[in-house]
Amino acid sequence: MSKPIRVGITHGDINGIGYEVILKAFEDPAMAELCIPIVYGSPKVAAYHRKAIDSPTAFSIINSADEAHGGRLNILACVDDEVKVELGKPSEEAGKAALDALERALADYREGLVDLLVTAPINKNTIQADNFHFPGHTEYIEERAGEGQKALMILMQGDLRVALVTGHLPLKEVSAAITKELIQEKLSIFAQSLRTDFGIGKPRIAVLSLNPHAGDGGLIGTEEQEVIIPALEEMKAGGMFCYGPYPADGFFGSGMFQKFDGILAMYHDQGLAPFKALAMEEGVNYTAGLPIIRTSPAHGTAYDIAGKGMASPASLRQAIYAAIDICRNRKADEESLRNPLRKQYHEKRDDSHKLKLTEE
Amino acid sequence: MSKPIRVGITHGDINGIGYEVILKAFEDPAMAELCIPIVYGSPKVAAYHRKAIDSPTAFSIINSADEAHGGRLNILACVDDEVKVELGKPSEEAGKAALDALERALADYREGLVDLLVTAPINKNTIQADNFHFPGHTEYIEERAGEGQKALMILMQGDLRVALVTGHLPLKEVSAAITKELIQEKLSIFAQSLRTDFGIGKPRIAVLSLNPHAGDGGLIGTEEQEVIIPALEEMKAGGMFCYGPYPADGFFGSGMFQKFDGILAMYHDQGLAPFKALAMEEGVNYTAGLPIIRTSPAHGTAYDIAGKGMASPASLRQAIYAAIDICRNRKADEESLRNPLRKQYHEKRDDSHKLKLTEE
Repeated sequence: MSKPIRVGITHGDINGIGYEVILKAFEDPAMAELCIPIVYGSPKVAAYHRKAIDSPTAFSIINSADEAHGGRLNILACVDDEVKVELGKPSEEAGKAALDALERALADYREGLVDLLVTAPINKNTIQADNFHFPGHTEYIEERAGEGQKALMILMQGDLRVALVTGHLPLKEVSAAITKELIQEKLSIFAQSLRTDFGIGKPRIAVLSLNPHAGDGGLIGTEEQEVIIPALEEMKAGGMFCYGPYPADGFFGSGMFQKFDGILAMYHDQGLAPFKALAMEEGVNYTAGLPIIRTSPAHGTAYDIAGKGMASPASLRQAIYAAIDICRNRKADEESLRNPLRKQYHEKRDDSHKLKLTEE
Repeated sequence: MSKPIRVGITHGDINGIGYEVILKAFEDPAMAELCIPIVYGSPKVAAYHRKAIDSPTAFSIINSADEAHGGRLNILACVDDEVKVELGKPSEEAGKAALDALERALADYREGLVDLLVTAPINKNTIQADNFHFPGHTEYIEERAGEGQKALMILMQGDLRVALVTGHLPLKEVSAAITKELIQEKLSIFAQSLRTDFGIGKPRIAVLSLNPHAGDGGLIGTEEQEVIIPALEEMKAGGMFCYGPYPADGFFGSGMFQKFDGILAMYHDQGLAPFKALAMEEGVNYTAGLPIIRTSPAHGTAYDIAGKGMASPASLRQAIYAAIDICRNRKADEESLRNPLRKQYHEKRDDSHKLKLTEE
């Protein structure tokens, strides 16, 4: 890549560990060589946190994204500088500051001033406002920058990528929400993202079962037979490499999860509890399926340790790496399609076809 | 312990990896020094598997448990020696052989000929018979050797111990099955087992939430407010150290699980998927709450790798260690209660009391 990627980083909840993990992630000067980092937030609040955790990270204050340069952290002043920091406490002020930063970052993204977004964690309760009625970042970004596409949340660490069929639903509503169409929709977005964003030509996706032991032939639930297996059969017939449904416990216990490019879980805890157990502090949340690239650390505001210098920047650092990788993969994918070679060579990218010298 | 502990090991499904993991576990001569190991099964089938995986483990053939000696693996002939082994296939014959061994081992346990049971994995479908109508070992042993007590399945590895409120239920029935009484019953058995079997004076038990994000204050389900929290409050008032409900993903992701002696999950995959992800091949299944001590490896028959020499004996080895430890802990507990010292000293075992010199 000749031109450095401009990474917009929203500061999230100022009473949590957002600034701490941002400042720590950029302690290593190599991070700011990798991209042009632009933090949407408040220089004053950044300085407050910098002092609280005694961070050596220096930053430049800018007022618009085009003033940003690589080699150093840039903080773009876009929230009320008088906002009060109350470490570890939810506050309306902090919610407003989080939303102001997010809106400005999205506006800049639309203007082409940043290439992608990395969002520090927000408090989903305090950020609610007239222009924010969403369960979280994912839904907000889908609505505001999705251009009508549907988002799929992917949790990832290294080659482990977990997505969910259902999200923030009460457990008792999960079974009714699992439909053939929904599974197929999620599978399609997932497969497309694995191809375009991760450069995996023929992604292999494992699908988990809804019931224990995959329903044990119908003894422990019938959704596998009635919904999940038919959904997978149709997708396979359409050429997708999807497998399962696998019982979640054996799947994660046997190491089988290492054999797939993506794992589609049926519901929140089924996918996220084993994912987080395995990924620990390096997990990244990626909003797939949209034109915009947005990642975030997998952790939350962590009020309990805010301002104490105990937070690990590993997840945010990985979120930045992942977003840059995805951005590059998309560009490579676009370029390879822009001026296609003669078909037979182009098709060699997927190895399911032999040279077709008769076609063009 | 002066007298070596006699460990009854049932051979499980002869078409799976049972004999392989048993033979491999006893390749190290130290294992048979630790206890008197008595395998309930067939010397002929053992020899077949020994040859298939080219195992160096020698064994003595015995016809009754009192012929067994330490220092070497003993195989107690108690199934039809003409039984046919069909590696990797379910068969009725194998189901019958598994059940015959289990019945003989239980009979010997009742006679006082073995001190505890370690069971190799069975095929839950082929073992079904007139005298076996159970979803698995746990329920069978609860019925046959439970003396009216209720069993609690604990999955464990090191200090990580996970138990479930509900087990082999379709996911859509889980919410309705979660009651205050059931949670409290499981908590009581769990706490008692942690004290007696693991020697933890004041066990700390974490309880997971049913819904994602612990219901987020009622936004994602109400069972936490209506059932789980009231159940915990009552138990706490009664002196139990139980905490939660914790969202499963954050609980396993933050390493918080390391801070507790036991974890009570609401349903199968919620507890077992992260457990197995963390424990990998060293997990042990312990049937707590009963007078009999029974453990087993956390894996199944693994038909796909039967007879290939690929199976790891780690889980079976840990199951044997765990059963022996529990046996010793129970004896120590019994002995300490048999001839109690004067009360003030006895009560020092739990450090919640000061010396009460006025009492006796």
